[in-house]
Amino acid sequence: MSSGNDGSEKKKNRKKEMKLGITYKKDASFGDWYSEAVIHGEMIEYYGVSGCYILMPSAMGKEKDHIEGFAPEVAWVTKSGQSDLEFPIAIRPTSETIMYPYFSKWIRSYRDLPFRCYQWCNVVRWEFSDPTPFIRSREFLWQEGHSAFATKEEADEEVLQILELYHRIYEEFLAVPVIKGRKSEMEKFAGGLHTTSVEAFIPNTGRGIQAATSHCLGQKFADMFGIKFEDDKGSRSNVWQNSWGYSTRSIGVMVMTHGDDKGLVLPPRVAPLQVIVIPVSYSKDADMASIKGACESTVCTLSQSGIRVELDDRTNHSPGWKYSHWEMKGVPLRIEIGPKDVANKQVRMVRRDNGAKVDVPVTNLVEEVTVLLDGIQENLFRTAMERRDACIQVIHTWDEFIAALNNKRLILAPWCDEEEVEKDVKVRTRGERELGAAKTLCTPFDQPELPQGTMCFASGKPAKTWSFWGRSY
Amino acid sequence: MSSGNDGSEKKKNRKKEMKLGITYKKDASFGDWYSEAVIHGEMIEYYGVSGCYILMPSAMGKEKDHIEGFAPEVAWVTKSGQSDLEFPIAIRPTSETIMYPYFSKWIRSYRDLPFRCYQWCNVVRWEFSDPTPFIRSREFLWQEGHSAFATKEEADEEVLQILELYHRIYEEFLAVPVIKGRKSEMEKFAGGLHTTSVEAFIPNTGRGIQAATSHCLGQKFADMFGIKFEDDKGSRSNVWQNSWGYSTRSIGVMVMTHGDDKGLVLPPRVAPLQVIVIPVSYSKDADMASIKGACESTVCTLSQSGIRVELDDRTNHSPGWKYSHWEMKGVPLRIEIGPKDVANKQVRMVRRDNGAKVDVPVTNLVEEVTVLLDGIQENLFRTAMERRDACIQVIHTWDEFIAALNNKRLILAPWCDEEEVEKDVKVRTRGERELGAAKTLCTPFDQPELPQGTMCFASGKPAKTWSFWGRSY
Repeated sequence: MSSGNDGSEKKKNRKKEMKLGITYKKDASFGDWYSEAVIHGEMIEYYGVSGCYILMPSAMGKEKDHIEGFAPEVAWVTKSGQSDLEFPIAIRPTSETIMYPYFSKWIRSYRDLPFRCYQWCNVVRWEFSDPTPFIRSREFLWQEGHSAFATKEEADEEVLQILELYHRIYEEFLAVPVIKGRKSEMEKFAGGLHTTSVEAFIPNTGRGIQAATSHCLGQKFADMFGIKFEDDKGSRSNVWQNSWGYSTRSIGVMVMTHGDDKGLVLPPRVAPLQVIVIPVSYSKDADMASIKGACESTVCTLSQSGIRVELDDRTNHSPGWKYSHWEMKGVPLRIEIGPKDVANKQVRMVRRDNGAKVDVPVTNLVEEVTVLLDGIQENLFRTAMERRDACIQVIHTWDEFIAALNNKRLILAPWCDEEEVEKDVKVRTRGERELGAAKTLCTPFDQPELPQGTMCFASGKPAKTWSFWGRSY
Repeated sequence: MSSGNDGSEKKKNRKKEMKLGITYKKDASFGDWYSEAVIHGEMIEYYGVSGCYILMPSAMGKEKDHIEGFAPEVAWVTKSGQSDLEFPIAIRPTSETIMYPYFSKWIRSYRDLPFRCYQWCNVVRWEFSDPTPFIRSREFLWQEGHSAFATKEEADEEVLQILELYHRIYEEFLAVPVIKGRKSEMEKFAGGLHTTSVEAFIPNTGRGIQAATSHCLGQKFADMFGIKFEDDKGSRSNVWQNSWGYSTRSIGVMVMTHGDDKGLVLPPRVAPLQVIVIPVSYSKDADMASIKGACESTVCTLSQSGIRVELDDRTNHSPGWKYSHWEMKGVPLRIEIGPKDVANKQVRMVRRDNGAKVDVPVTNLVEEVTVLLDGIQENLFRTAMERRDACIQVIHTWDEFIAALNNKRLILAPWCDEEEVEKDVKVRTRGERELGAAKTLCTPFDQPELPQGTMCFASGKPAKTWSFWGRSY
């Protein structure tokens, strides 16, 4: 990030060049020198709260829609020790209003654009809906990105680039199929222009889940926070801004998607442990030393090939207990080595995803494990996709909608795309089987054909789009 | 971390083996299945605050000395949106009382020991002393480690191992000399058994600064939180615990130590940018294309050798402006390339630490940069050490002590090592030149000889040890 003013006018530059530099001397005025050094060295910016970098109430007042959207969930620090604070400090539910006052200092010229910053941090949203680990917790970790551009075209392009990255993380790493689309006016980010998202679906509960979002904020925040740039002709305009986020919620979606009655099932590409090796002996006569040697050599060979593998050689647990233990932890592949395996120079491999067993000569160890891990990754994704797709139901009428909703479907419906109609659907489904109201999940980018004359399932007006509807987390 | 109970008794194991496994079915009871899956898969532990993992007031009540030590600085969340919380939530000033209730669940047997966990996180201490960026901020990032052992010997050994790591980070990476030693009873970690630290010293302000700490907590926390283990004979004892921490304060210490009147001076081993390349042309006739080509080839060669290098080819700033800009940011080495350099197949290198200039043939580029960066790292450390050592003053009497204090010295004094005497020194120096009271910094492990009959500078009683005293951050 640059705090330099890159104004193009020569005169201005010369003036600024004269101001550059540390004015205090280290020996004469150490405290002032230190402040200048860390500011001009671009290590820190002072914030409005003494000794602190926390969301200020005054800054929070800036963007009204945004504030109204988050206000009920903001946690307020009002006391330190036994003393009341002079003014309450909000804990960030998201960082727009913390960061953007400073964007106006950092962004001056078109040369400072595009401007991007990125952080992993914890945020707090004091929600009153039922908490669910990873999926909905009051404090969670997330990655948030914030960017600014000279033109709407550049901002729009980045929104989709980021969304595609999120799409790939879900599908290629977590093996979770997601749908890319646009959120409705009602469901978009408070204060933003439009929101895109990737949406997952949990067949067991029949609920959609917003898996990650990428927003175009338009110029509204820029206007409120005075984030303007000077173009190459010297005229000043508001920047176009985006923000985007991806959180630990993704872990919960992955668990819900792949887990089975034995516990977790982790996709090999993200499993901290990909292979667990377990010595197996069913008789007291078995040559434990040679079994243990074969196990250790297996671990050694695999880990040298970059495979994440461990040996469970605890003597106070039976092999059966260990099977359950590592199945519960979702380890993709188990290798069992017993006396017969040692004698035949082979190992037995057992897949976590489908329980399939195969005996493999030790000479083929690395190749076979690699192929199996790839196969498990692919199978988890394909199976999840099939299960998700089997839940998609196309409907045209209100009655079909209610039936599909109660049947836990992921509903694809023709819609007039009017906010009032979505509100009305929420009200009308609120009492339905005490499972909560239905809402739009997204309007998918991948649109089926919409024949002329198709009517909105809810309002009976001409449909403008196909949208996904359902209950959600 | 393992939540398994590794009790050695066979019967117990069999009983536990029968309980292992997920009891709910994913299809029949999804919510309960999910909770079991993430708990038994060891992904999460529920905490006492719904949907949240925040320090509980009830848990905070456990260790009285510890609580009293931190209480005045704890920030309390009392409201969400417009509503008062049912009970206030403390924001962690440190994580002992958040973590340790769970240690008692995770640690059961001697097989679970040693137990170690580690995290980087943000903590909040609402201090009322003057804030200074990095050095004393109300929210800061730190690394904290927590460990548990069967014996005091193992705990004591780890305390010193960790302290040595901190010592090496400061001296080998940040080029900041630090003193290893033990904190006094008054200055040790609240509730712990004893605290070791590395102490830096800032000559300009004459203040010591606690640079990182490694504590032996003894068995007190274990007793309060019920963290017991069963040894191999079946008897139960409290574990011995350590905790240790290193924070973003280290960045401030580095800045204060090396910075000069031009701004930051970063040690090459930790500088995000090690070399900045700047094209230099003093006449309009200069062949800018060949200069730019030489610059780009320099950047390319250096970055291929793993050196962190960038080119500043902005056309709207003069070379002089760029020199100041990158000096302010502390980049260790500047490379200037002008027409004469291109003609002579050389580049000019300018050191940030001492301003020395040298012309180097492009054929020797990588070797010379490597040697220079190593030289800068070594020179920064040596210079800092000399400046620090020049401030050390050995004193024997109260008058010498006061004179040295007012002369901003790092005072090494014979001391009776009594808490009452340290308190008394604090009281007696409180008003001294309005710079704050003096206190012990540490009792260094590296002890000078203490001749028999040496008296404490403050109490006149027989001295037990040499200790460092001074004002501190």
